[in-house]
Amino acid sequence: MAPMMKSFVMKGIGEVGFLDKPVPEPGPNDAIVKTTRALVCTSDVHTLRGGIGERTDLTLGHEAVGIVAKLGGGVKGFREGDRVLVGAITPDFTCENCQRGHTSQCQHTLGGWRFANVKDGVFAEYFHVNDAQANLTPIPESIPDEVAVYCADMLSTGFMGAEHAAIPLGGTVAVFAQGPVGLMATAGARLMGAGLVIAVEGIADRRELARHFGADVVLDPSEGDAVEEVLRLTGGTGVDSAIECLGAQATFEACVKATRPGGTVSVAGYFGHGDSVAIPRLAWGAGMGDKTIRTGLCPGGSVRMRRMLRLIEMGRVDPSPLTTHRFRFEEVGRALHLMETKEEGIIKPLITFGA
Amino acid sequence: MAPMMKSFVMKGIGEVGFLDKPVPEPGPNDAIVKTTRALVCTSDVHTLRGGIGERTDLTLGHEAVGIVAKLGGGVKGFREGDRVLVGAITPDFTCENCQRGHTSQCQHTLGGWRFANVKDGVFAEYFHVNDAQANLTPIPESIPDEVAVYCADMLSTGFMGAEHAAIPLGGTVAVFAQGPVGLMATAGARLMGAGLVIAVEGIADRRELARHFGADVVLDPSEGDAVEEVLRLTGGTGVDSAIECLGAQATFEACVKATRPGGTVSVAGYFGHGDSVAIPRLAWGAGMGDKTIRTGLCPGGSVRMRRMLRLIEMGRVDPSPLTTHRFRFEEVGRALHLMETKEEGIIKPLITFGA
Amino acid sequence: MAPMMKSFVMKGIGEVGFLDKPVPEPGPNDAIVKTTRALVCTSDVHTLRGGIGERTDLTLGHEAVGIVAKLGGGVKGFREGDRVLVGAITPDFTCENCQRGHTSQCQHTLGGWRFANVKDGVFAEYFHVNDAQANLTPIPESIPDEVAVYCADMLSTGFMGAEHAAIPLGGTVAVFAQGPVGLMATAGARLMGAGLVIAVEGIADRRELARHFGADVVLDPSEGDAVEEVLRLTGGTGVDSAIECLGAQATFEACVKATRPGGTVSVAGYFGHGDSVAIPRLAWGAGMGDKTIRTGLCPGGSVRMRRMLRLIEMGRVDPSPLTTHRFRFEEVGRALHLMETKEEGIIKPLITFGA
Amino acid sequence: MAPMMKSFVMKGIGEVGFLDKPVPEPGPNDAIVKTTRALVCTSDVHTLRGGIGERTDLTLGHEAVGIVAKLGGGVKGFREGDRVLVGAITPDFTCENCQRGHTSQCQHTLGGWRFANVKDGVFAEYFHVNDAQANLTPIPESIPDEVAVYCADMLSTGFMGAEHAAIPLGGTVAVFAQGPVGLMATAGARLMGAGLVIAVEGIADRRELARHFGADVVLDPSEGDAVEEVLRLTGGTGVDSAIECLGAQATFEACVKATRPGGTVSVAGYFGHGDSVAIPRLAWGAGMGDKTIRTGLCPGGSVRMRRMLRLIEMGRVDPSPLTTHRFRFEEVGRALHLMETKEEGIIKPLITFGA
Repeated sequence: MAPMMKSFVMKGIGEVGFLDKPVPEPGPNDAIVKTTRALVCTSDVHTLRGGIGERTDLTLGHEAVGIVAKLGGGVKGFREGDRVLVGAITPDFTCENCQRGHTSQCQHTLGGWRFANVKDGVFAEYFHVNDAQANLTPIPESIPDEVAVYCADMLSTGFMGAEHAAIPLGGTVAVFAQGPVGLMATAGARLMGAGLVIAVEGIADRRELARHFGADVVLDPSEGDAVEEVLRLTGGTGVDSAIECLGAQATFEACVKATRPGGTVSVAGYFGHGDSVAIPRLAWGAGMGDKTIRTGLCPGGSVRMRRMLRLIEMGRVDPSPLTTHRFRFEEVGRALHLMETKEEGIIKPLITFGA
Repeated sequence: MAPMMKSFVMKGIGEVGFLDKPVPEPGPNDAIVKTTRALVCTSDVHTLRGGIGERTDLTLGHEAVGIVAKLGGGVKGFREGDRVLVGAITPDFTCENCQRGHTSQCQHTLGGWRFANVKDGVFAEYFHVNDAQANLTPIPESIPDEVAVYCADMLSTGFMGAEHAAIPLGGTVAVFAQGPVGLMATAGARLMGAGLVIAVEGIADRRELARHFGADVVLDPSEGDAVEEVLRLTGGTGVDSAIECLGAQATFEACVKATRPGGTVSVAGYFGHGDSVAIPRLAWGAGMGDKTIRTGLCPGGSVRMRRMLRLIEMGRVDPSPLTTHRFRFEEVGRALHLMETKEEGIIKPLITFGA
Repeated sequence: MAPMMKSFVMKGIGEVGFLDKPVPEPGPNDAIVKTTRALVCTSDVHTLRGGIGERTDLTLGHEAVGIVAKLGGGVKGFREGDRVLVGAITPDFTCENCQRGHTSQCQHTLGGWRFANVKDGVFAEYFHVNDAQANLTPIPESIPDEVAVYCADMLSTGFMGAEHAAIPLGGTVAVFAQGPVGLMATAGARLMGAGLVIAVEGIADRRELARHFGADVVLDPSEGDAVEEVLRLTGGTGVDSAIECLGAQATFEACVKATRPGGTVSVAGYFGHGDSVAIPRLAWGAGMGDKTIRTGLCPGGSVRMRRMLRLIEMGRVDPSPLTTHRFRFEEVGRALHLMETKEEGIIKPLITFGA
Repeated sequence: MAPMMKSFVMKGIGEVGFLDKPVPEPGPNDAIVKTTRALVCTSDVHTLRGGIGERTDLTLGHEAVGIVAKLGGGVKGFREGDRVLVGAITPDFTCENCQRGHTSQCQHTLGGWRFANVKDGVFAEYFHVNDAQANLTPIPESIPDEVAVYCADMLSTGFMGAEHAAIPLGGTVAVFAQGPVGLMATAGARLMGAGLVIAVEGIADRRELARHFGADVVLDPSEGDAVEEVLRLTGGTGVDSAIECLGAQATFEACVKATRPGGTVSVAGYFGHGDSVAIPRLAWGAGMGDKTIRTGLCPGGSVRMRRMLRLIEMGRVDPSPLTTHRFRFEEVGRALHLMETKEEGIIKPLITFGA
């Protein structure tokens, strides 16, 4: 009989619980990873609330690191026992969209997102990795699991926000919302050479973290119009680049308004609600203002993950302050609940597996 | 006393007429051009109807060619009598936005648009050109004035739509709306190597012209859902690039929906109405679908104009079929009226000045 | 016992012959293709002469189309009997360089080049395709095998030359050398919107073909300094883009000299000899002239191949005039010999397999 | 009679001295700046030794800041007495190359370089600035003149080296030679998000400074083959990007060899000698290795200068450690001599004008 493992699943919309499932088996190009650390994401809450539709007994979670437990015959260069990081997004790298360079859109829109979407996620003692050759990344000895796990989604997504923003060296950037992705976008903007980084956030603790991660100016939108303040700080012109990190109409709109003509709005937030997102017409130059709106989904793959790890290894960034709470796997339900209520000043809850 | 000239002006919102004005004088970096041919643009109608606010006795028109009549002392390399083309957009090339490469946004959003906006336009016997060194372009002998005049706005704007669309060589493109700008976007997509160009247009004559200018497939939106048909023609994936050439919610939305993940929506239309333009959320990948939305305003300047003229000179494109009507300067009012009513199958009315 | 097939091999440097080999078997991600048409390439000659070192009984050839004979278990979406095109370069799409977007450099420099290099080529009754999911492309019914086969290398390489050349719409291009790759670079420059295409070639027949494929001006270097003529034709400035299609010091040097400051030199030729290639210092602006030198190796993969096929299907280009000679598989040795001597005005010899 | 000023000139090749010249007068678009601080550059030595040909009584120097002394009538937004920075390169921003975005190649190759080349330089009590509107930049109060002056050339050129290198966030970079430009390239690579910066330099003091400016690893080429060590440090693949900062065959060659396939070699050095610069053929992938070689000349203009100043103002970089020596204007000859002999561990000598 197949060995069994404990999994934390979404039983249906709004309902969670632990479930025993068989430990998965790898196909020829796959790997099975024994989970050591994971992070809970706001999108887990969104999924649980029905954001991507009905799911039955689906294991939640997409941010994890662990140890290689089993390898398919076609996976070269790894051995059982290797410490590995797996990106939240696991493309196949061969489909049409992957060949076009849009690996997060593997096969179809957002199709690289497989964990806790179209297959079981990582909140389990073991998880399955497709196309493992390109989706497993060795973790350098100097980086603890609980730090490396931030590369899977938070660094990759937040930094993508900065990379898509076309920031000129010495240019000006505004980052709207300073949740974990926003904080990493702020860190990313600094890493990429922004000369002025303005972070906008309503929660005081997050504003403090924004400063820690490199914001030069931190604005509290409850204390005045953030767009007007951004314009004032840039001599009336607006920033070269604005990064949206909430997935909300208000912050998106603020991004378009705060950006100068010829500037770029980079969207890192997930827009979970409504039929449409409105571009403010005049701030957009009536469709002629040379403002570019880019979007993207957390880039995955071993090359991406290795670069993220290198930035940690070489001391460029330390995501540890994002860990505001720690739980054992058995307590993951409480972590998920906190991510929903955003109580206790939570940014990211770290989940420890095993002993 | 200053010599006088006949001008066709907007007396106020909704009211036009001829007015005698003094022939303008050039400053040190300027030129005065004697108009020979001009084109009427739908944006002239928009201006007349109050689209950019109140104006008093403002000379209309921004598409023209002519003969150098007078040169400021700082303008080198031209002589009185030279046949010249002047882009609809006349940047100063030295301001902050120009140095950043966004010359159409000279000084501020859309600031490169001066003619018939912040200074007198070209519907006059003479017109004034700022920063003439970079804004005058000699017309090759082989190109008649009535052909060259299409470079000022129609080719430059339509082709910009294609250039901003990131069309892969052999890729698929959909161009929504086939007015003069849309037709030039269609021609531009073909010129840039699209492997499949789909043109969408409700008016039969324009669909026929779309074929003439290079569309492989022409869709009539009144005969079925154009987005569905684009998806069908591309095996369900959508096009690599969609070009919006109307400035309307419906066509913009169709562009986002018809574009594959990782594709580009290029906006060449002017959005004249409403507070906002809505991005359809799901088709946009909920802000994560790697779809880029670019915009821009007709690029100007002598280098741009020379490239447009070269494409005509070398037989790559002939915009002449856009000229559906011809009028003498004295009749420009009637031309403007036709552009408003879109009667008689009008695409572009050509205005001839002088004898 | 395994079924056998006839192969045309390089027995050792300078020596060729037919050899019976077992029909290859596919691994789980592979396919076996029954060859129908192939082309001989100058690089086959180069390999035979020792250009990539010693090889024993290696099947030559890398340009072919055929029929799917057998599929590995992991290859989806194809069936035995499908007519397929296979790019000359067959990346794995998952290695580090592939993930970085440089699929032709799979695993290591030029590593995507496997046929007749590190494994048997296509001059055999059957050939083996690695990573078949991404390296097989269905051939549309309307395109005969003998036309489709040009996509494998000639179109993909020549067009890459144009794509890497950063040609502005309406810009000026010079293509040095008009062998089959150069002719496709000329066609590619036209397809991508060049306003002036200057082809340079010493052989009269090829100059004629250059005109056929879209060159506006054709220069014979034996009749005068081609660089000087290019400068003259561009008003002294040089072209926006130059494409090197021979892999020789003289043409490379001419490219750098013929290109304006801020322009691009795109290399499509293979440099087979010598320790180094010399950049002319002054023409290069003493290392400060803003001239970019790009290189690349024939892009492969099904997305690339599909776009190439689409350009043929939609009538954008017809490579058929490149076929100057036709041989049966049994005569492939004579075809190879002609490619070496360049006698009889040969451009490309087409090889037909089977009845 | 025109007021006179002291100038330090190149009397002819190899001969310098002070000369009284009339204080220059501005044309309508020009400005006259009273020099406060300047820097001596190795290219001043190169010019003196005949590197750009014969010159008679040409004022040397191109890196300076000062106070606006006189403004042409067409220059808006500045007042006499303003503290200003002027880039070493002063484009007109309107010529063909400028419109194409290559402002350092104004009018012709390297044509944006006017100071101490085609007009008097800045080693004088006053200097003349063409196209002053776009070439003057106000210096923020918080930045002393002796720091701001580094933006004119050292920061702009060194950072350009990094900007042209296509460094992926978290990628690997090698910077060859750590003179003042190389040190700023090192700082620039760090500012732009490199995950590993390897600096190569033979002089111990400069290696120490390289560490100070952000190099993670510093190699002494006299202690072993730097290319091999770079390959070793990158797991055998080579760096994503290499930056050449010396203008020499050996370092250029090392850059090509140390760069991975698909990587970029960015040239910031000036190649002053020889007919050609040799690309090592095999390391270049025989012209097919997807390695890009970019070059450029110190970008100028007020937007560029403002970004450089912002990086200093916001604490991103402090070039002060480059100032190893200080001289009064009267002693500039000694400074120039030291720049030639490279004695006393000189990096940059700062020249102070006036009291």
